[in-house]
Amino acid sequence: MKKLWLFNQINSDLQKVEKELHAYIATDYPVLEESSVQLLEAGGKRLRPAFALLAGKFYGYPFQKLLPVAMALELIHMATLVHDDVVDASTTRRGRPTVKAKWGNIVSVATGDYLLAKALELLAEINNPEVSRILAEVSIEMSQGEIQQIKASNDVNQNLKQYYYRIKRKTALLISASCKLGGIVSSAPRREVWALGAYGHALGMAFQIVDDILDVTAEASELGKPVGGDIRQGIMTLPLILALRNSAEKEALKEILLKEAKTDQDVEEAIRLVKESGAIEDSHYYVDLYINKAKSHLDELPNVPTRKALSELANFIKERKF
Amino acid sequence: MKKLWLFNQINSDLQKVEKELHAYIATDYPVLEESSVQLLEAGGKRLRPAFALLAGKFYGYPFQKLLPVAMALELIHMATLVHDDVVDASTTRRGRPTVKAKWGNIVSVATGDYLLAKALELLAEINNPEVSRILAEVSIEMSQGEIQQIKASNDVNQNLKQYYYRIKRKTALLISASCKLGGIVSSAPRREVWALGAYGHALGMAFQIVDDILDVTAEASELGKPVGGDIRQGIMTLPLILALRNSAEKEALKEILLKEAKTDQDVEEAIRLVKESGAIEDSHYYVDLYINKAKSHLDELPNVPTRKALSELANFIKERKF
Repeated sequence: MKKLWLFNQINSDLQKVEKELHAYIATDYPVLEESSVQLLEAGGKRLRPAFALLAGKFYGYPFQKLLPVAMALELIHMATLVHDDVVDASTTRRGRPTVKAKWGNIVSVATGDYLLAKALELLAEINNPEVSRILAEVSIEMSQGEIQQIKASNDVNQNLKQYYYRIKRKTALLISASCKLGGIVSSAPRREVWALGAYGHALGMAFQIVDDILDVTAEASELGKPVGGDIRQGIMTLPLILALRNSAEKEALKEILLKEAKTDQDVEEAIRLVKESGAIEDSHYYVDLYINKAKSHLDELPNVPTRKALSELANFIKERKF
Repeated sequence: MKKLWLFNQINSDLQKVEKELHAYIATDYPVLEESSVQLLEAGGKRLRPAFALLAGKFYGYPFQKLLPVAMALELIHMATLVHDDVVDASTTRRGRPTVKAKWGNIVSVATGDYLLAKALELLAEINNPEVSRILAEVSIEMSQGEIQQIKASNDVNQNLKQYYYRIKRKTALLISASCKLGGIVSSAPRREVWALGAYGHALGMAFQIVDDILDVTAEASELGKPVGGDIRQGIMTLPLILALRNSAEKEALKEILLKEAKTDQDVEEAIRLVKESGAIEDSHYYVDLYINKAKSHLDELPNVPTRKALSELANFIKERKF
């Protein structure tokens, strides 16, 4: 797990979440055990559990109620990652081979199904129909986003609306739900649950745009996977959409993006064209819009130190390099 | 939907389940809509909803409570079918192209995830933690069974215990849960919930063995898919395991089964060897054991006409040709 100083308030509890997740996914089934643990240990920032815990901090922080919700959020997130591997041609995630690269599609599907079933088991234990309903609705939207992602592949004519539609489902809805659920199980007033959800939604959008920018601008060593992966796979990200619109060499860029098999040189050239077009700066403008929107919703929440932490978290997401 | 005269007691309600399922899986997402409807219309016997309704018949038949449970059971069953397509090399199911054959692995994964999310939404509505817990546990076991199926592929040395382990997870547990849940939401006494589950478990085991027998003995026109599909895919079924043990030509059979690419002639020859070995008759012996076990548990249930229907259903499963 990658530790963020921003999570100082909750770091020791995030480690409890981590430990409980490890124990919870344990199974006697050799391949399933290995693939689930590999996925868990590939790590990530545990953003969704962190958001749930931080939201709970506003309202007395009932950790025993927050814990299973935080775990269910991460299990659902992990399941979507491993099912996305079937879609995705990537062979590494955060510096490690993906489950698909190591064991193949079939194990990826079964591992995702296992993690979803474990999330369902937790939801039965949580026994709160609103929590179940929110996570069901997000899961439905996420599966619809998966389909949209296939349709949108290699579509060089798509517009911003289609892009936002996809990243909302891919990322923003689950982060929004994480914030909301942390509030709900901590008995937050309804109006503040709504504000938490709106904060999470805007922050999730910003988070995904930054992810898409980093695919073009990052160093592979910091990113934990090869740069230009989206370009290679035909995923139309915001920098690509904006570059296709504004680049002086848009035809050359389009030609590369429409190639079925792209060489390393193709990807490098596409990255150069995107950078030169000003699309990275333009993308950052949209990040700023979402970050500011996220922060504005914090005004509707109680003025306690956690509010400042959530505001700093928004700044961090804007400036992160990994 | 294939109508069975055995379901006379509940046929009009099964059609309501069908209609509600159609409405419930409707979505504006073109591919997802088509793939889900295709899967639903490929039909099948709706055994799991039927078992839930029949179990409810013993206890006042609260149809409005049984309906969402019946739907959730079929949604989970459909999700496992379409995720199995990723594993499976079959291109047809019940006479129609599979989702995978028509749209590919990615859509199969997303469609299964969508159906699971819809099931989760129903469970939130049902709002009965015991129902959620039972379905979560079955889903966990089913995903473990998927993994086991991969490991067991082409393994000509496996024993009956391993085979039973797999078909329990592939089929018996969800049928057992269907019977149990029908009882639970109808407020059946605990002892009778247990008997319903035991009936369903034994019947589910028999059902899968008959399925495995039909893969060797059926006519393709009745089966809705090519005969010998399991042999072609390296799935070790009971007839194969018994033939490998008892056939006078077991080495010839083993040689065919270990071939990576099997020709039509290979499959035909394997079928001939299995039939000649007496493995079909031996497999029927195990079917009978399970059918009798299933029936014996009916004695623990109230003596109403539904009990006779469940007994006849057991006979039907034993003798079915499709």
